[in-house]
Amino acid sequence: MEKGRILLAVTGFHPQRWRELLSAEREVVLEPDGAKDPSITYAVVWKQKPNLLSSLPNLRAIFSIGAGVDHIFADPGLPDVPIVKVVADNLTQYMTEYVVWRVLDHHRHGLLYRSQQPKKIWHEPQQRPAGDISVGIMGLGNLGRAAASVLLSLGFAVNGWSRNDRPMQGVATYSGEAGLIPFLKATDILVVLLPLTPDTQGIINYGVLKELRKRNGLGGSVLINAGRGRLQKDADIVRALDDGTLKEASLDVFEVEPLPKTSPLWSHPKVFVTPHAAATSDPMHLAPIMLRQMDAFERGEKLDNLVDRKAGY
Amino acid sequence: MEKGRILLAVTGFHPQRWRELLSAEREVVLEPDGAKDPSITYAVVWKQKPNLLSSLPNLRAIFSIGAGVDHIFADPGLPDVPIVKVVADNLTQYMTEYVVWRVLDHHRHGLLYRSQQPKKIWHEPQQRPAGDISVGIMGLGNLGRAAASVLLSLGFAVNGWSRNDRPMQGVATYSGEAGLIPFLKATDILVVLLPLTPDTQGIINYGVLKELRKRNGLGGSVLINAGRGRLQKDADIVRALDDGTLKEASLDVFEVEPLPKTSPLWSHPKVFVTPHAAATSDPMHLAPIMLRQMDAFERGEKLDNLVDRKAGY
Ligand SMILES: NC(=O)c1ccc[n+]([C@@H]2O[C@H](COP(=O)([O-])OP(=O)(O)OC[C@H]3O[C@@H](n4cnc5c(N)ncnc54)[C@H](OP(=O)(O)O)[C@@H]3O)[C@@H](O)[C@H]2O)c1
Ligand SMILES: NC(=O)c1ccc[n+]([C@@H]2O[C@H](COP(=O)([O-])OP(=O)(O)OC[C@H]3O[C@@H](n4cnc5c(N)ncnc54)[C@H](OP(=O)(O)O)[C@@H]3O)[C@@H](O)[C@H]2O)c1
Repeated sequence: MEKGRILLAVTGFHPQRWRELLSAEREVVLEPDGAKDPSITYAVVWKQKPNLLSSLPNLRAIFSIGAGVDHIFADPGLPDVPIVKVVADNLTQYMTEYVVWRVLDHHRHGLLYRSQQPKKIWHEPQQRPAGDISVGIMGLGNLGRAAASVLLSLGFAVNGWSRNDRPMQGVATYSGEAGLIPFLKATDILVVLLPLTPDTQGIINYGVLKELRKRNGLGGSVLINAGRGRLQKDADIVRALDDGTLKEASLDVFEVEPLPKTSPLWSHPKVFVTPHAAATSDPMHLAPIMLRQMDAFERGEKLDNLVDRKAGY
Repeated sequence: MEKGRILLAVTGFHPQRWRELLSAEREVVLEPDGAKDPSITYAVVWKQKPNLLSSLPNLRAIFSIGAGVDHIFADPGLPDVPIVKVVADNLTQYMTEYVVWRVLDHHRHGLLYRSQQPKKIWHEPQQRPAGDISVGIMGLGNLGRAAASVLLSLGFAVNGWSRNDRPMQGVATYSGEAGLIPFLKATDILVVLLPLTPDTQGIINYGVLKELRKRNGLGGSVLINAGRGRLQKDADIVRALDDGTLKEASLDVFEVEPLPKTSPLWSHPKVFVTPHAAATSDPMHLAPIMLRQMDAFERGEKLDNLVDRKAGY
């Protein structure tokens, strides 16, 4: 089989570096060029323009440059070819760092210490051992499991929630709709690592936050969202923080990104904001993985990490 | 052998909880009572009053309630009996949490994000993978090794420095005076977990900080001290931060504690202060360990975790 050409369509990313790295081995056409081009076999995409992919008569596979693929499904004319999502040590490590960093900052009273320092207050709050705190990971997939394993090594109790049953050594696992409330009730720090699908959109709402365990070693429950912004209702988070349903939150993602200047989350004293930076796709690490997959595919091998179109992730 | 009585002398700690837990199994005398008491066999101490221990005619062992024992050696009349230091999972876990929390906060640009948020700036600095950053642990003992192992699992490069050669899988180890400069030159984030001894006092000075690697993936070198305050020269740290020798610092310990209100460290924008809270001794976890050791000693077994009086730790 001939080496297929690649259409690169990565809205919101700088395409130069991706192009440079991919074109070391294959011909790359940069959007807006390439529409209807019969020589294009692969698309490497992030938020591609609607109906662009369906115009390619010989498209054989779509590669997402991120672990999430909701941006691909937003295209109403999405052609019926395999979609490959990114699974890479580099990306997984970044996400694990982010999750462990935020869990420790809440557990170790970062907010309190930072508020004491300008006042020169030398005061140590009661510090509970990690084993008294349970971190609940919502979305126990590639990223969730990796984060869980470091949290376990730090001594935290860890719960996990997924769509299907996903046993994991040392983790109390829950699944499906029936498992949601029991999972939340056993969770002090909720870490959201779900994909955005029709089933998960808006799932982090006031009612769900209300179910988290509040009488715990932290003095309240904590939300960390590093999945997708539209999993959450920004306004419900503000409400939950203001009435004490939530003690603190770390948010990497938001309903609208960049987070509008008018959002009360920016200046909320209990919120830590990062600009969708938990695990950013690094072309240096990811482009070679995609090229290896295209080579294997052309040798007749199966594509790894395929998206389940029906499930939407 | 009869169950020996305990003298409890824990300056700066609330003795009640220690007394309660120890007296479940043995008679406990609370300082200032107990001087010269021939029925006392053990002392459980933190910064005991000078010459108190030497007044006990039948003292057989001294137990430190913390991992450090410099506070015990400060006593000019220290009697020549075995000194036991605390080694406990609970304490080790707390220190690992602290070290991993601070390393991640510097690595993941916590200071920058916290300065951007009030200005509503949505900006992601370049984020290097952990593998590009080397964390150098000064004092690769019980606490240093435990922290190193979680840092390795997060993907950091890890260096270690100790007095004797201490090989550790995955860690580049250096030892003794000859190993110090090479260790520093290979280190981006310096984590100090040394004991305070005549050899280590004041070791964290300007000259030493100057040797750290500055052209690195962090844009500068970082100091984290969770050992003892008198290992460092507070003024040298301020100087190093002000002239760019250091990029940032997390300090849990200080030359004088509580940190005086006049110290410039309190309000330094690049310093994160905690009140000697990295790993606080929790009587609930530590008292049972001491009681087990006393029982074993009376059965004729050897005491574990003995301090080397000549080395001073
Ligand atoms: N903020 C960032 O920088 C950033 C970076 C990368 C990724 N992300 C986000 O992280 C997400 C997770 O990535 P991943 O690689 O870990 O994905 P993954 O391996 O596909 O895992 C997704 C997990 O979510 C569970 N899940 C999906 N739908 C569910 C539902 N309706 N109810 C319950 N559980 C459900 C899945 O359950 P099953 O195990 O049963 O399938 C699985 O455990 C991505 O989709 C992306 O949105 C964010
Ligand atoms: N901030 C807090 O809350 C807190 C809490 C607990 C402990 N600490 C501090 O942490 C310290 C370490 O505790 P630990 O249990 O890990 O002690 P440890 O097991 O005795 O380890 C001490 C390490 O320092 C090394 N070292 C000692 N003197 C040295 C010298 N002159 N040059 C080079 N290396 C030297 C030792 O080398 P060798 O391996 O060759 O002996 C060993 O690796 C304690 O002494 C205490 O001061 C602080």
